[in-house]
Amino acid sequence: MAERAIPVLEIFGPTVQGEGMVIGRKTMFVRTAGCDYRCSWCDSAFTWDGSAKDDVRLLAASDIVKELKAIGGDSFAHVTLSGGNPALLPQLGELIDRLHAEGVEVALETQGSRWQPWFERIDELTLSPKPPSSGMETDWEALDGIVGRLKEADRRFSLKVVAFDDLDLEYAARVHARYPGVAFYAQAGNGNLGETDSARLLPYLLERYEWLIDKVMKRADLNRVHVLPQLHTWVWGNKKGV
Amino acid sequence: MAERAIPVLEIFGPTVQGEGMVIGRKTMFVRTAGCDYRCSWCDSAFTWDGSAKDDVRLLAASDIVKELKAIGGDSFAHVTLSGGNPALLPQLGELIDRLHAEGVEVALETQGSRWQPWFERIDELTLSPKPPSSGMETDWEALDGIVGRLKEADRRFSLKVVAFDDLDLEYAARVHARYPGVAFYAQAGNGNLGETDSARLLPYLLERYEWLIDKVMKRADLNRVHVLPQLHTWVWGNKKGV
Repeated sequence: MAERAIPVLEIFGPTVQGEGMVIGRKTMFVRTAGCDYRCSWCDSAFTWDGSAKDDVRLLAASDIVKELKAIGGDSFAHVTLSGGNPALLPQLGELIDRLHAEGVEVALETQGSRWQPWFERIDELTLSPKPPSSGMETDWEALDGIVGRLKEADRRFSLKVVAFDDLDLEYAARVHARYPGVAFYAQAGNGNLGETDSARLLPYLLERYEWLIDKVMKRADLNRVHVLPQLHTWVWGNKKGV
Repeated sequence: MAERAIPVLEIFGPTVQGEGMVIGRKTMFVRTAGCDYRCSWCDSAFTWDGSAKDDVRLLAASDIVKELKAIGGDSFAHVTLSGGNPALLPQLGELIDRLHAEGVEVALETQGSRWQPWFERIDELTLSPKPPSSGMETDWEALDGIVGRLKEADRRFSLKVVAFDDLDLEYAARVHARYPGVAFYAQAGNGNLGETDSARLLPYLLERYEWLIDKVMKRADLNRVHVLPQLHTWVWGNKKGV
């Protein structure tokens, strides 16, 4: 069977992972096009709102590996699959296997609305169900199923919830309580995507991170958690491709 | 046998871990007094330079647990042992066991110059050998022994090297190459401990972090690493006890 092409919007790196369980990791990014969600504050809305539809390239897994090497040279050993929602693409299994064959580890970011069998081959998997402020509804049955399968497969995975307000934090606590044994990351949301001056963005991001720390520190139901900023926005602001 | 007292300088929290493998983790801190090192840029020099010798309290493990509860209430499930060098204190085993008995996880930060049998009961252990800019000499034989024992004991541990300059980065690469299977964190050093205005400190810390990212991204011998700032200094500057 011929390889099924993968819709790709960005390939870049090496850079530093800014989020969750992989924060700080030296990595390359492959950003796929298409999403089943429409989060109100999505920082990659160009993957689904049509604004970048002319930039979508349909690439074979082998071509993606070639392009990663062309850009990253020999200076990478880790690739992050992000979107959009890469979990819409059954054909990503081929890419993961090719990367593993080269000794490269693979991380995935997805909201946990869809399962793919290749989840069981991901080295570091982040499930980030979306809180009320996103405007999305969580499919708890789908999420239960994914968490259950990942546990069974004994994969290194975590939950991450972005929080913009108190309602979001309640949602985070609910997710954490539902999956108590799973590593949990609370992340301060960036509600200021229009700010192009990163020096002006930083005090706002700091304030939001302190807000979240303060809230989490006081709650006994959020003791076994990590609280993190979106580190790359502190360094590079709202710039794309870094 | 009566409990041997533990020399303590600070007990505080809950707060957020700012470094390495535990970055973002909600934790309490217990800072012990005394160190076998005298790093030129130590951010906790009061633990060994005599300036806080009147603040050292000799506490039983049970009293430390009591104080943690008095300060943190029921809002913690994680304690970080830091110093100074806690590895100088054989009596910390008692504290670790008491915390575990309460369902509390324990992390340790140490330079890796001394072994203690209780290392095998630490949940998240960070070994941070010191680079040339510290003015210290690494005892490679001691470090080899500690890494070997932790591997044998199948403990969750990592190496962390703080880097201030190119020589430090060479040292980091040497440490990483010596222990290739061990999770490795490179951290940008804070050479501006005298700055009391955190708004003025932040641009400097950002610049140092970007410097380190830039260097690490280019090196093929530093592909499987994490690059992190000292997150708490971005939020709280050089303040103590947060």
